[in-house]
Amino acid sequence: MADTGWPGCAKSLKGVILDLCGVLYDSGEGDGVAISGSVEAVKRLKASDLQLRFCTNETQATREKFVAKLRRLGFDISVSEVFPPAPAAISVLKQRGLRPHLLVHEGLLPEFDGVDKTDPNCVIIGDAAEHFSYQNLNEAFRVLIGLEKPVLFSLGQGRYYKETDGLKLDVGVYMKALEYACDLKAEVIGKPSPTFFQSVLNDMGLKPHQALMIGDDLVNDVGGAQFCGMKGVQVRTGKYRPSDERHPTVIADGTADNLAQAVDVILSQRGH
Amino acid sequence: MADTGWPGCAKSLKGVILDLCGVLYDSGEGDGVAISGSVEAVKRLKASDLQLRFCTNETQATREKFVAKLRRLGFDISVSEVFPPAPAAISVLKQRGLRPHLLVHEGLLPEFDGVDKTDPNCVIIGDAAEHFSYQNLNEAFRVLIGLEKPVLFSLGQGRYYKETDGLKLDVGVYMKALEYACDLKAEVIGKPSPTFFQSVLNDMGLKPHQALMIGDDLVNDVGGAQFCGMKGVQVRTGKYRPSDERHPTVIADGTADNLAQAVDVILSQRGH
Repeated sequence: MADTGWPGCAKSLKGVILDLCGVLYDSGEGDGVAISGSVEAVKRLKASDLQLRFCTNETQATREKFVAKLRRLGFDISVSEVFPPAPAAISVLKQRGLRPHLLVHEGLLPEFDGVDKTDPNCVIIGDAAEHFSYQNLNEAFRVLIGLEKPVLFSLGQGRYYKETDGLKLDVGVYMKALEYACDLKAEVIGKPSPTFFQSVLNDMGLKPHQALMIGDDLVNDVGGAQFCGMKGVQVRTGKYRPSDERHPTVIADGTADNLAQAVDVILSQRGH
Repeated sequence: MADTGWPGCAKSLKGVILDLCGVLYDSGEGDGVAISGSVEAVKRLKASDLQLRFCTNETQATREKFVAKLRRLGFDISVSEVFPPAPAAISVLKQRGLRPHLLVHEGLLPEFDGVDKTDPNCVIIGDAAEHFSYQNLNEAFRVLIGLEKPVLFSLGQGRYYKETDGLKLDVGVYMKALEYACDLKAEVIGKPSPTFFQSVLNDMGLKPHQALMIGDDLVNDVGGAQFCGMKGVQVRTGKYRPSDERHPTVIADGTADNLAQAVDVILSQRGH
């Protein structure tokens, strides 16, 4: 019988999904900085027989600009391997005939160039950072409160993330703010939404038990992947906090000091 | 036996508590505007044998400046009759030896002039309006997340209020944002906190059943007062919305088109 625990389960894996910010690099001034050993770790995974995809809640830039930044940091990654929330959101808009009011980072706006935004009948919020001004949040609120059936999409639901100069509030905080203001429940597009993880598995042609998610966010990366039937490993970089290892509901299948160590364990289990 | 329903209960009342914004006036450019008939209605209550107090979640100005504005709008009101959250918060800080980081409107800052704010061990948020920038909210978040036992006080928990140019997000929205970011529960100072209503009753020397609250906020004015054992009447001005009259949990004892009509009913029941 196959070993289903960590690290033994690594023997039967067919694919690995990596979170980006906090696992491959820390964001901050300019491009941010690669986390020690992570460039080499990605290279080793790519050279192995495992499929590799990148699943991120990054919404501050288009996929093209985001991947260009990762390449400047030294990572050999292509656009088709990266799954962020905005393209998934655009699919949902098309399916449901919705026209969004956008409260997102200006770097993400070009993703929505071809989308009809006249007379909006929903609101999409992303990690808008400094654009989360009182005025902009109030504007999104007024659109929602004016709709007969208000629909709010949140590109992720993170609490905060770590930049080189400290912790920063993430989109989930503003999602909760608008949920309370309008007495509604947002629809999350991105991690930990099961639909979002499933789209990555579909792209690899794998079943959940054949894939492992590695992330720094215990709830959204590890818990979200586990909810879909994948294994989830947390790295002690990025937004990791020691209290994560005593979390009341989410228990990672494994924990590693960083991506390099996690990849070491996986590949040595597979006899590399 | 005394009539406990509305409007019959008005016969046995000893005191009335009025909310201010949305009942006496609508805020907005400059001083805002008095709501039609409300100046005369306050005058009639003052001339009656009822005690009168004003209970507000206003946190954009010191009590002195706020009352001066009300007087310019034509209301005969003095500082000692008005109960806002900031003085109550200062009492709590003293009782518990806490030093606040403040995220409040600049107009409120002088209330906290005598308060030690060095090396803060709690955060107080008020209706900071435009001061609820991403940077300021992030700063409050970093103070909280850095404390071993984070304490967040929210001066009220309103969702939104109405100004002359439209609806505006209120402090409760940012309270929910920080609660989610830091995984904590805020302590609310102001309506609908029972402690806050009780302090007004204490000042009048009345028992809850002897007093009536009149407000435009169904949950925080009417529901809060009812929770304390008072009667609560909602006026159809300010932030009132028709859906309030179908609210799933809070049912006002009475509803009036505006303060003038409510006062008419009360005084006619009392034979004036």
